[in-house]
Amino acid sequence: MRKLSMEELNRKSIDEYKQAEKRPIVMVLENIRSAYNVGSIFRTADAFLLDRIYICGYTAHPPHKEIKKTALGADESVDWKYFKSTKEAIDELRNEGFKIFSVEQAEKSYKLHDFSQKDGEKLAVIFGNEVTGIEQNTIALCDGVIEIPQLGMKHSLNVATAAGVVLWELVRTKISV
Amino acid sequence: MRKLSMEELNRKSIDEYKQAEKRPIVMVLENIRSAYNVGSIFRTADAFLLDRIYICGYTAHPPHKEIKKTALGADESVDWKYFKSTKEAIDELRNEGFKIFSVEQAEKSYKLHDFSQKDGEKLAVIFGNEVTGIEQNTIALCDGVIEIPQLGMKHSLNVATAAGVVLWELVRTKISV
Repeated sequence: MRKLSMEELNRKSIDEYKQAEKRPIVMVLENIRSAYNVGSIFRTADAFLLDRIYICGYTAHPPHKEIKKTALGADESVDWKYFKSTKEAIDELRNEGFKIFSVEQAEKSYKLHDFSQKDGEKLAVIFGNEVTGIEQNTIALCDGVIEIPQLGMKHSLNVATAAGVVLWELVRTKISV
Repeated sequence: MRKLSMEELNRKSIDEYKQAEKRPIVMVLENIRSAYNVGSIFRTADAFLLDRIYICGYTAHPPHKEIKKTALGADESVDWKYFKSTKEAIDELRNEGFKIFSVEQAEKSYKLHDFSQKDGEKLAVIFGNEVTGIEQNTIALCDGVIEIPQLGMKHSLNVATAAGVVLWELVRTKISV
């Protein structure tokens, strides 16, 4: 079980990345307080070949020193766009035919392990502020809510961890290396 | 799709947490550089009711200001133990009948979506340093390597994100709320 070297990992160059076919998934970030979390989410989006990241409200966007520190270059590979409000991002995604889901703890949520992206479906998933979560107004604009079942004492996962968990669930049966 | 209030989330008290039946999974942390990552991993372990965390080498352990900041109390709910070397942690887990897997990119790895914990099996998963990964000597002591398939330009996920992804895969079919 020899560890693979950097060369053996055979990762994409930035040009190869830009040209590669992406998964039809957009992550929407609403008022994320920590730029380090944004950077980690860029890195996850890179690993799972997401289409793009929509950055909304007071969420930090590139170029940004703290994003760079945790994105480790993924802020250059993954496409992103900034919107003043989440509603504007949702309007644009609707026009492009995306289904839109909040990741939250809410009534009538779909439990993550029961949720899947249908073939050919374009999917946007919204992640909200570390303390207050996604705005109720934003949730009202969505097709539904996806919830990560949690059993412990704490009320939520770290937002970058939650993004990793949700994206893995969406790509796990579709990934091949 | 009304957001649930803190009360409605009905999370466990610390006493209820300590008494709850845990999943037979131990996370082993080897030389994790960032105490913030350790804190996030505690929070994930809390959410998915893991058995305990084994903290090895120069990984920071509680009580620690930066762990507290990202664990948000999970450093008090989740059991943990410190070991000077990963080998000592592995020896103790072997004596207790655990199967032990490194999470790495290595030859002959099991792809995460093909891996599952058998009923009644006790499982330990090791996560390594943010830059250098798990020591080759540690990998040699394991029953195998679990690899998260990654398709992008970067060489790895953030370690706290990787821990979330792996744990979700292990609990996703066994979780009920």
